[in-house]
Amino acid sequence: MNKIVTLIISLTLITSNYVNAQTHPCLTLTKKGIKEIKANLGKTPLYDKSFAEVKKVVDAEILKEIDVPIPKELAGGYSHEVHRKNYNTMEKAGLLYQITGDEKYAKYVKNILHKYADLYPTLGLHPAKNSYSRGKLFWQCLNDANWLVSVAQAYDCVYDYLGKSDRARIEKDLFVPFVNFLSIETPQFFNRIHNHSTWGCAGVGMIGLVMNNEDFVKRALYGTMDQTITADQHDNDGGLIKHPGQEKAGFLAQIDGLFSPDGLYSEGAYYHRYGAYPFLIFAASLQNTKPELKIFQYRDSLLIKSVYSLLDQTTSTGEFYPLNDAQKGMSIYNSSLISAVDIAYHFGKRDPSLLTIAALQNEVVLDESGMAVAKNIKNKIPLPNKSIIYKDGIDGKGGAIGILRSKSDLNLVFKSGTHGMGHGHFDQMSYSFYKNGKEVVQDYGMARFVNIEQKAGGVYLPENNTFAKQTIAHNTLVINQKTQYGGDSDEADKYSPKLNYYNFSNPEVQYISSRDSNAYQGVFQNRTLVLVDSKEFKNPFVLDVFNVNSETENTYDLPLYFMGHLMSISTKVTIPNQMQKLGKSDGYQHIWKEGDAKANEGNTNFSWLGDGVFYTYITATTGSDSILLGRSGASDPNFNLRRDPMFIVRKKTTGPTTFASVLEAHGSYSPVTEKAINSYSDISAVEVLVSNKDYTIIKLKTKENKNWLVALANQNEEKQHAIKVEGKDLSWNGPFKLLKF
Amino acid sequence: MNKIVTLIISLTLITSNYVNAQTHPCLTLTKKGIKEIKANLGKTPLYDKSFAEVKKVVDAEILKEIDVPIPKELAGGYSHEVHRKNYNTMEKAGLLYQITGDEKYAKYVKNILHKYADLYPTLGLHPAKNSYSRGKLFWQCLNDANWLVSVAQAYDCVYDYLGKSDRARIEKDLFVPFVNFLSIETPQFFNRIHNHSTWGCAGVGMIGLVMNNEDFVKRALYGTMDQTITADQHDNDGGLIKHPGQEKAGFLAQIDGLFSPDGLYSEGAYYHRYGAYPFLIFAASLQNTKPELKIFQYRDSLLIKSVYSLLDQTTSTGEFYPLNDAQKGMSIYNSSLISAVDIAYHFGKRDPSLLTIAALQNEVVLDESGMAVAKNIKNKIPLPNKSIIYKDGIDGKGGAIGILRSKSDLNLVFKSGTHGMGHGHFDQMSYSFYKNGKEVVQDYGMARFVNIEQKAGGVYLPENNTFAKQTIAHNTLVINQKTQYGGDSDEADKYSPKLNYYNFSNPEVQYISSRDSNAYQGVFQNRTLVLVDSKEFKNPFVLDVFNVNSETENTYDLPLYFMGHLMSISTKVTIPNQMQKLGKSDGYQHIWKEGDAKANEGNTNFSWLGDGVFYTYITATTGSDSILLGRSGASDPNFNLRRDPMFIVRKKTTGPTTFASVLEAHGSYSPVTEKAINSYSDISAVEVLVSNKDYTIIKLKTKENKNWLVALANQNEEKQHAIKVEGKDLSWNGPFKLLKF
Ligand SMILES: [Ca+2]
Ligand SMILES: [Ca+2]
Ligand SMILES: [Ca+2]
Ligand SMILES: [Mg+2]
Ligand SMILES: [Mg+2]
Ligand SMILES: [Mg+2]
Ligand SMILES: [Mg+2]
Repeated sequence: MNKIVTLIISLTLITSNYVNAQTHPCLTLTKKGIKEIKANLGKTPLYDKSFAEVKKVVDAEILKEIDVPIPKELAGGYSHEVHRKNYNTMEKAGLLYQITGDEKYAKYVKNILHKYADLYPTLGLHPAKNSYSRGKLFWQCLNDANWLVSVAQAYDCVYDYLGKSDRARIEKDLFVPFVNFLSIETPQFFNRIHNHSTWGCAGVGMIGLVMNNEDFVKRALYGTMDQTITADQHDNDGGLIKHPGQEKAGFLAQIDGLFSPDGLYSEGAYYHRYGAYPFLIFAASLQNTKPELKIFQYRDSLLIKSVYSLLDQTTSTGEFYPLNDAQKGMSIYNSSLISAVDIAYHFGKRDPSLLTIAALQNEVVLDESGMAVAKNIKNKIPLPNKSIIYKDGIDGKGGAIGILRSKSDLNLVFKSGTHGMGHGHFDQMSYSFYKNGKEVVQDYGMARFVNIEQKAGGVYLPENNTFAKQTIAHNTLVINQKTQYGGDSDEADKYSPKLNYYNFSNPEVQYISSRDSNAYQGVFQNRTLVLVDSKEFKNPFVLDVFNVNSETENTYDLPLYFMGHLMSISTKVTIPNQMQKLGKSDGYQHIWKEGDAKANEGNTNFSWLGDGVFYTYITATTGSDSILLGRSGASDPNFNLRRDPMFIVRKKTTGPTTFASVLEAHGSYSPVTEKAINSYSDISAVEVLVSNKDYTIIKLKTKENKNWLVALANQNEEKQHAIKVEGKDLSWNGPFKLLKF
Repeated sequence: MNKIVTLIISLTLITSNYVNAQTHPCLTLTKKGIKEIKANLGKTPLYDKSFAEVKKVVDAEILKEIDVPIPKELAGGYSHEVHRKNYNTMEKAGLLYQITGDEKYAKYVKNILHKYADLYPTLGLHPAKNSYSRGKLFWQCLNDANWLVSVAQAYDCVYDYLGKSDRARIEKDLFVPFVNFLSIETPQFFNRIHNHSTWGCAGVGMIGLVMNNEDFVKRALYGTMDQTITADQHDNDGGLIKHPGQEKAGFLAQIDGLFSPDGLYSEGAYYHRYGAYPFLIFAASLQNTKPELKIFQYRDSLLIKSVYSLLDQTTSTGEFYPLNDAQKGMSIYNSSLISAVDIAYHFGKRDPSLLTIAALQNEVVLDESGMAVAKNIKNKIPLPNKSIIYKDGIDGKGGAIGILRSKSDLNLVFKSGTHGMGHGHFDQMSYSFYKNGKEVVQDYGMARFVNIEQKAGGVYLPENNTFAKQTIAHNTLVINQKTQYGGDSDEADKYSPKLNYYNFSNPEVQYISSRDSNAYQGVFQNRTLVLVDSKEFKNPFVLDVFNVNSETENTYDLPLYFMGHLMSISTKVTIPNQMQKLGKSDGYQHIWKEGDAKANEGNTNFSWLGDGVFYTYITATTGSDSILLGRSGASDPNFNLRRDPMFIVRKKTTGPTTFASVLEAHGSYSPVTEKAINSYSDISAVEVLVSNKDYTIIKLKTKENKNWLVALANQNEEKQHAIKVEGKDLSWNGPFKLLKF
């Protein structure tokens, strides 16, 4: 911590010093950059393609009459969409003016800036009262800040084109009051450690750099130090405005407070993707104007690391794992990722593996970083298909997210990091599982249709809180049908699981283990996940060993959100004549009970077919356990939820209890050849031989009657272990051992 | 009919005459073909690629020890799969011997033929008793016939290689008893007008051609004329063995009895795809051995036409419309379609548009027809995206299937042909609708997982009869919650709707209309579908005008199996606390009632998002109509059904009633850009202005308050019509008019 404080102080000293006049453009475009772009234009296919696409859109747009409507509607509505289109067009027209020298683009920007300068002084707060920080052009300040980030770039590009009096007028009537409104007049928006404020700071800082306004740049870097925010102020998503202990604000405090030292963003990749753009574009602007700040080296090059963390949280097809609030389908093809990849390449270490992503994106931004990528695209080298751990928490001690990958394109994503603030889900120790980029065991994601007006204007739907965030919506243990931390996100933000150990050094057998004793009072949970993709076994599989211990009797539900069509189940399922809900609260009210069954004594098997691959889940059960088959979609008057299936193993017990399960991926089915290949799993039994304070020993039996043991040390993990199992001596080193038995 | 009888007689005369010795190979490969192949091998990339793939598989396979197991299991089981692999390998090894001259292939075929000749005489009927015609090598004769079609080709290829005594032994112990078993000893298999018998005849005929056995070829062409089949004998799928009035049997009678003059196969494209192979491979063999038969010209070149009918029944991505019993996902990429395309090209008119399909398939068969395709592939021309009508019924008078296609890649498939025998669904006058090759309004398809052993051995599931075949599983009217024809398929086979008219001449406004008065006693139904994809409207749409008339009061349910997530509905839906089934029988017992509502007075709107496109359904309703939201999956103890949504408009009324609905396809949504474009429909009202015996007049209103009329003449269709509507005179020619009003 001392180190960070020192760094901030030294940055402060440097920034107070800058007084020299700025040349323009100075943000993401520079005079040097323009020269480089002009020299390569027409000779660099990827840049030329992107340039032609932007030019086509802008050329069509600037022929139309300029419309700067009085703000009225929410997202999706007329005025909202027009203002959004306007700032996009302005930013791009500015770029085109600099690249082509064609004054029609500069003239368009000048004319529309004057229109905004006419309108802005007449505006009060936006009429819609839905936001904790209402904007003026838009219903929320966040969108006003989006506008400013783009328009600062546009203004930068036409700065020299505009006369002094134009600039004076536009700054006085538009930018100065715009900045004051976003920063001083809306402290609850500007001073948070939150992506909203990152947009605010980027906008204020970037226009400050263009205007050479030291005060604006300082506000952006350090916040307004406003003291009026109360401890219980929340935003619309239920996130706290000011977290206990928050002492700083502004851009640098956001870099400190929103990322783990590994570059992980607490709210999850979906929000990271959104926040990445202002972080990187403002940082690039600072680098171009104030290279002495060394912003990209700040906090051990954290901003560059953060791009890698973002890119790592994707499937082999480039889609983000939908941890926390996240709309499925968001991917590396989003425009903010195009910018992130170009900036990380240009301002980072010119890593040729980033070029592989840029080649997939098949688009670059039109500034110097985009040109750098386009010029070097032929040097691309393949991305590694590697497992990775991201330590979470701003000090790196908030647990971790582990992504285990193996050669059969299996991805096992283990969430045991921080809760994720307002956008966090109560999903600690949950996993999701992918094959070939497709979901096999899904995280539900969020209950929201972003920007689709028919769905409550595109905002969060009630079922996001009542279902999608709840523990039962995740592949983790639900105790007594209650959500973790009693569903209190402020409470959940205080804790995270502890990473026990992980080891990805053998790509055929990788494992990770975490524990938690905060999510449920008086209950100790310990989950170890093993990904086996080895010639020693017929099929790759996940072994899931979930130990739980409590002195009181509890009901434990372990759900599995399998994606596909049920093939078989090894126990007799009773189906209902009238279908009931699974419960009354904590998300259970949203699940229809499609069937229930007594579990088998020994093992219960369950198999499905999804995206042309067979999967079999085999779990150790006793005859007093039960099985539930559920489907989301109950208590859903507006049909906001998907109707997705789940399988639940329920144990009612006291003292130490172990859930041990294997999920095998095997074979294939094609509706074209109609061939079912390898449609049966290979592992025939999963048995818990030992499970106590010291050790958990699991036996796996294959169909050819080969026996394997998985030995886990539950404490003194790094030591030498010895234990007698089924009359045989077993000894091993370290926390984990897989061996023939 | 007279013409056909004459043709059969002349064919009979010709075939009785052939006595000359055959050279070998003579079926799909000929001495001339081999020469052509050898001359082009290594210079024809598409052929070479296919050749290399086959060679790789066969080379690996023939290294293994030959296994000819005692028949035991059903499909998917060990002995079944081994025998299946054996005949595939034999066929391909024979080809490779002829092409390469490498004796290892011939030796393999010789050895395995002797093994089969050892085994066959020891066999009784297959132990599994599941089939109406049990086989010897397999559980059903159908698979024995599959074996014979392949092995006849293999034997043909090694005929000259084998010594006389080898041939004598193999023919005596294997082929002669094999043929007698399939034909004389199993008349209920061999003499049907059904794809099973086509396989039987092809196998018997092809081995007959190789052996130069006139008797076998005659049996294949004309059946065994067995008289022992009783009127009530059915197969396992509920199909009649012998239809009333069937007088002929054998291959030619099957060409006469299974296709409409347009080449439409009554059971549907999925079964046609399966049946196409033996039709075409036997025909090609006949053409090569007996060109004087002119088999490809038979019945006005019906076999070639039938390939086009098959190819036409696919989406723009090459998947078959799943009419009748059909597993979804079957496509032009199936091996039987590769063979069909190559044969239709080579033996038909060398149509260069077929080469476009061959290029997509990226594979050819290894005989002369495959080489012809591969040599000419560069001449390919695009497939037309055209609408087409296929008249159904063996006389062309059994209604029709209409496929309406438009420039936005919309496909509207209207089923108003024959029922489809044992594999028919009670789906008369139903439609399904596709955009960009994806289902928008689906036909459920069949309830079966072909060759997946876990699902009842891969056979038809009980829910195929109880749900998938029922009328409520289709987008057509269900009256009093009962299935068409009381669910009696023998009865349904007797009737089909009558095509009123159709017109596809204007690609922007296409229409088709049919009527029926047999599906429900005392009820007259008339459906007109219009596909509009025109600059005159903002969005393309389907107009559905469904007139129904009955003297008694009935409940009419019109379901819409929409594919996607509900966006909005214009009426207040009540959702259940406990979910009930929609009914007790006729498929309704398989539907959960997710919600119900009173319809609006005027119009009820319903919109959804599917595969990135918005759809809005707007239907004329009164306040006494009701709306049901349902989902398949009730009464399904083995989870055999998909959980798919539907929307039902229910009217309870007497006398003439009109359902008038518009289904608009509009806009797009991408989870990557998160932009919802054009997410609202344009047509704001659908009103039935007139609906009587003579005319149905529908008014469409757009959001910009433009009015359109659709005028339909319900009788005297081809005449001049004049009528006063809303005080204005309206006159038009012919059955249909769309005009501004
Ligand atoms: Ca930009
Ligand atoms: Ca996905
Ligand atoms: Ca499809
Ligand atoms: Mg979640
Ligand atoms: Mg969480
Ligand atoms: Mg059907
Ligand atoms: Mg039918």
